Amino acid sequence: MSTDPTVADVPDANLNGKTDIKVVFTPSGRQAKVAQGTTVLQAARELGVDIDSVCGGRAMCGRCQINVGTGEFAKHGIVSGAGSLGAVTAVETRYADKRGLADGRRLSCQSVLLADAVIDVPPESQVHNQLVRKAADERQIEMDPVVRLCLVEVREPDMHEPSGDFRRLAEALAKQWPDRVSGEITCDLHILQQLQPVLREGKWHVTVALRDGCHITGIWPGLKENVVGVAIDVGSTTMSAHLCDMATGAVLASTGAMNPQIRFGEDLMSRVSYGIMNPDGPAEMTKAVIAGLQQLIDGAAEQAGMSSDDVIEIVLVGNPVMHHLLLGIDPLELGGAPFALAVDSALSLKASDLGLALNQGARAYILPCIAGHVGADAAGVVLAEAPQKTDKMTLLIDVGTNAEIVVGNRDRLLAASSPTGPAFEGAQISSGQRAAPGAIERVRIDPVTLEPRFCVIGVDQWSDEDGFDEAVKSTGITGICGSGIIEILGEMYLSGIITMDGVIDGGKALISPRIEADDRTFRYRVSDNVTVTQNDVRAIQLAKAALYAGFRLLMDKININHIDKVVLAGAFGTHIDPKYAMVLGMIPDCELENVRAAGNSAGAGARMALLNKGARAEIEQTVRNIEKIETAIEPSFQDHFVKAMAIPHKSDPYAKLSAMVPLPERILTAQDAPALEGGRRRGGRRRSS
Amino acid sequence: MSTDPTVADVPDANLNGKTDIKVVFTPSGRQAKVAQGTTVLQAARELGVDIDSVCGGRAMCGRCQINVGTGEFAKHGIVSGAGSLGAVTAVETRYADKRGLADGRRLSCQSVLLADAVIDVPPESQVHNQLVRKAADERQIEMDPVVRLCLVEVREPDMHEPSGDFRRLAEALAKQWPDRVSGEITCDLHILQQLQPVLREGKWHVTVALRDGCHITGIWPGLKENVVGVAIDVGSTTMSAHLCDMATGAVLASTGAMNPQIRFGEDLMSRVSYGIMNPDGPAEMTKAVIAGLQQLIDGAAEQAGMSSDDVIEIVLVGNPVMHHLLLGIDPLELGGAPFALAVDSALSLKASDLGLALNQGARAYILPCIAGHVGADAAGVVLAEAPQKTDKMTLLIDVGTNAEIVVGNRDRLLAASSPTGPAFEGAQISSGQRAAPGAIERVRIDPVTLEPRFCVIGVDQWSDEDGFDEAVKSTGITGICGSGIIEILGEMYLSGIITMDGVIDGGKALISPRIEADDRTFRYRVSDNVTVTQNDVRAIQLAKAALYAGFRLLMDKININHIDKVVLAGAFGTHIDPKYAMVLGMIPDCELENVRAAGNSAGAGARMALLNKGARAEIEQTVRNIEKIETAIEPSFQDHFVKAMAIPHKSDPYAKLSAMVPLPERILTAQDAPALEGGRRRGGRRRSS
Repeated sequence: MSTDPTVADVPDANLNGKTDIKVVFTPSGRQAKVAQGTTVLQAARELGVDIDSVCGGRAMCGRCQINVGTGEFAKHGIVSGAGSLGAVTAVETRYADKRGLADGRRLSCQSVLLADAVIDVPPESQVHNQLVRKAADERQIEMDPVVRLCLVEVREPDMHEPSGDFRRLAEALAKQWPDRVSGEITCDLHILQQLQPVLREGKWHVTVALRDGCHITGIWPGLKENVVGVAIDVGSTTMSAHLCDMATGAVLASTGAMNPQIRFGEDLMSRVSYGIMNPDGPAEMTKAVIAGLQQLIDGAAEQAGMSSDDVIEIVLVGNPVMHHLLLGIDPLELGGAPFALAVDSALSLKASDLGLALNQGARAYILPCIAGHVGADAAGVVLAEAPQKTDKMTLLIDVGTNAEIVVGNRDRLLAASSPTGPAFEGAQISSGQRAAPGAIERVRIDPVTLEPRFCVIGVDQWSDEDGFDEAVKSTGITGICGSGIIEILGEMYLSGIITMDGVIDGGKALISPRIEADDRTFRYRVSDNVTVTQNDVRAIQLAKAALYAGFRLLMDKININHIDKVVLAGAFGTHIDPKYAMVLGMIPDCELENVRAAGNSAGAGARMALLNKGARAEIEQTVRNIEKIETAIEPSFQDHFVKAMAIPHKSDPYAKLSAMVPLPERILTAQDAPALEGGRRRGGRRRSS
Repeated sequence: MSTDPTVADVPDANLNGKTDIKVVFTPSGRQAKVAQGTTVLQAARELGVDIDSVCGGRAMCGRCQINVGTGEFAKHGIVSGAGSLGAVTAVETRYADKRGLADGRRLSCQSVLLADAVIDVPPESQVHNQLVRKAADERQIEMDPVVRLCLVEVREPDMHEPSGDFRRLAEALAKQWPDRVSGEITCDLHILQQLQPVLREGKWHVTVALRDGCHITGIWPGLKENVVGVAIDVGSTTMSAHLCDMATGAVLASTGAMNPQIRFGEDLMSRVSYGIMNPDGPAEMTKAVIAGLQQLIDGAAEQAGMSSDDVIEIVLVGNPVMHHLLLGIDPLELGGAPFALAVDSALSLKASDLGLALNQGARAYILPCIAGHVGADAAGVVLAEAPQKTDKMTLLIDVGTNAEIVVGNRDRLLAASSPTGPAFEGAQISSGQRAAPGAIERVRIDPVTLEPRFCVIGVDQWSDEDGFDEAVKSTGITGICGSGIIEILGEMYLSGIITMDGVIDGGKALISPRIEADDRTFRYRVSDNVTVTQNDVRAIQLAKAALYAGFRLLMDKININHIDKVVLAGAFGTHIDPKYAMVLGMIPDCELENVRAAGNSAGAGARMALLNKGARAEIEQTVRNIEKIETAIEPSFQDHFVKAMAIPHKSDPYAKLSAMVPLPERILTAQDAPALEGGRRRGGRRRSS
């Protein structure tokens, strides 16, 4: 036992019976007395200090690099320095010559402890290193991938004790990697087919990809240093992929592409219809999306200087229709009530069963679906945003054709989808368009003159700045994108052009010629060829009312009136200004600083599931516990919906918003109520007054 | 509690709180008091009485038929009769009209207990019915197949509680078949792909094939009554298949075919060589054998009036080279020391991974290999003959190009292969040929005149009987088959034509012109065109000495001098006369009645593994415990081998044999010893004296 009071709280490990050297590992702080001559890696392993290795201590992989601390460490009562370790060995020199080794770095598997030492394990040498998801993000991914590479030295066959090569491989793996093996070792058939030549080519040294601690999915002769995984978000419009090193978590390549299913229908329901109208439709769409994924993955692998044969694991998220089509399941049942999924649980299957040509043993993990309209993409958002881990009442919104909504905290989580329709994406808007050069994306309206100033995608200046007219010639002003329509409506409301009930006020034509008569209603002219019509306002009102009614319904179920934190997932959240979203009542009243755009959270969730197997168990459990609400059969939905047609809301005072942004006086016109009847119908709808 | 002293030893189950009716099941003897109105099936299930069902009590499958006992059952103190059960129901009448129901038979799921009853469960209604393997066999197969059919009624999807169809299927299965479900239910991807249309086609009633209590491999709308499995022995020359009903175990069809790999080489080593000489050779041979298996299975299914889509499980056995080629593993390493198998453990894989087109979810189970020369076929023999279950010291011999030898009992089992070469199959014998019409298969030699009489395959008469000359015209006398060569050598020895050391005695030419000079040795003429030469005798001596040395070595390891029971597996054992085998010293000295020809034991073992999942666990465990001996590196092998060249043996007195069969005086010629040096070499060997 140590008599040093500064370390009395950490029990000493007495390794090998000798107690002559004290070693302290940072940052873990673990320490022990070990026998002189112990290697640093050996000491670390016995102490449970987290040092990575693929080659298992053979000075081949270079993963186990450490630094030795220099100086007096009063806290630990020791002096440490280069001399604490044995001299750099020939093996290390050979490694350094061949692969490079930064100044002061040693291979822990080759460095022998000669005197008291402080050993620093840099993050890149830690197995479970924390991966910062992105600068702005408070949360990290801890590396604990489901697949690990292990170099194994296999005993040669021996007539005295005949046993199959696979048995000896499994025995070697269990013996040489006891920390990683968690059960009886099994393997794919293709491993058995390659086993004998690979073992002999590698001179009885092979690297295996060990999945889940018990199943061999890949094998290579000698040392294989890197395999990669790909996290993929299969959206109905676009697909994006992040290719990651399965050991370090580093994103080596990111690629995106249009979903090739678009040729079968722009939105989900038109694809479901295509499947219904064409007997081979579902199979065609499956084939198309798989071919698209193959290209996406091949492209990412090429970008990273690797081949798709290096891809050992992929994770997929997508909405229910994409999920089913990926799996070769006809999405027919998702096209109508009761919107039954074929399968909702998470799935692990061979990537080859999906028709993907990656490493022969590559597996695909698909996140669970939450409900018929709340898919594996929403599960990805939940995993990434982790409302189940906080006390804060959280609202997650992912807007597509439907809005997927999750509300709750660690005590309770509810999910629903709300039929917002495609208006938020610029569809059903007279001047609406996709976010592309020429589209108006930011707008401000002078409350006195009602003159607009705006930004166009592809042009740096605002429309009232010098050089705008010149610059905009290359793009033109072609329409308004989704975030632009939110902003312009917010500004129209704040400047009094539209009333609280969403009527474009014809009286304002007296102030500005930009208010123009349009049949029996009015429109607001933003530029020569871009106007906002009364129908446009109605379309957004319907969409935002559906969204509000959705989250409000879930809040009612939990019996809360306040949300602590709003997370806007997906491209929608990234581009809109939370202030205008709140002015329109698309999100609940709260401090603006608590509204966050999370970007592609679904993809981030996929990446977490790729790099940490615990994340899979976590999201599977979380999804099982989520209460699934079907808005269509909730009687109060319609009531919430009607009230939410007003801007920001008929009865909700939006007090916090009012404190930040001066809102116009609340006046509801009498004629408004009938206009809202049956308001959940979409498209081609005319104002009744 | 019962006050009847005759049943006091069986605790009464008090079902449903009422105790008004006593029911006794035969043959199990289980009994209880149950509430009036309980169905017989329900009572049986609660008592753990073994009654089969696919439909789960819906009067669809007819598997649960029972008879009600009639009369006074003094032992049980009750009177039973037709009136003990409720009247035949309309449902039963409908079943009987549609499917037939033997007189007195009732469906236990529809029969309600009204009064005390003795219920007899006939064997065909028992889940675990005993299947008699064959008339002559003392052992039976208990049915406990790895795959069971279960009809399930699935709850329809509901918007109030959205869940995937698969989740509801799994829940229904667990609830409706609690005895059969043993873990979390999973399924193949193709099940998910079919699930929704099949559920709807079956109006929410589907039959699933449940494998191992937890994995769904097949699904059909409504009631699916039968699936089949196939047990296949893949020999290097012939392949045989038995197609069995997976519920009853009945063999519905048996087929056999040549192994199409024969075109790549007659024997195993020539196929290994073909693989070495031709880069695509192993793949070609795999393709050939798989195509052959597909035909074999298709043929068997057709014979049984079914389709290969009904095949849900297959079991394969074969020697190590066949085993590897089946799996798509190059058998290269099996061609030379140390004869390393790629894999020795048992394997379960998708039949489609092997390239077989059966039911999409069909699995292939492959028995474990014991060692590099002792294959899954030998494991099948062990499973079928079960030396591990007896106290009797057992010797199993399966002769092919190598003899696979297992010796031991429940305490200890050893296995080895011995290089007998192909002489026993008639190869390397001057007049040797395959067992085919025209081949001499039985021989007797008059000890005085040295005149032979013999039987020819395809001819009913012996050669000295009336009508033989006429009958043999159609076949000719074309050679000697394997069993014929054993018999003729045994008779030549018994009649003094060959000496104990295997020399054809030229002195006997004085007695009979059938002893002819042949270069510096002699030969024995059997017919105009068939002779036995000195080289033929030597070839058999070498083979039988290797066989003897093999089992003797294993007996030495166990330290025994006596074998209680000899089992000759395979075609070899079926055709040879144990007496002559013992005269030649091919099997150890023992009572002839304890020598048994077991026929295709390997195939029988495959069938056991097909029909009883416990048999799989048993053979896997047994094979792990078998001590594997490599004869090539055992110093005593050579010594045993040399001594075993004599007939029946140089030092082993074969006392039991002598008591049954008068053996010639034991004289060894001096010249014999040098002739035996290096005796393990094969082929083209000349006598040195």
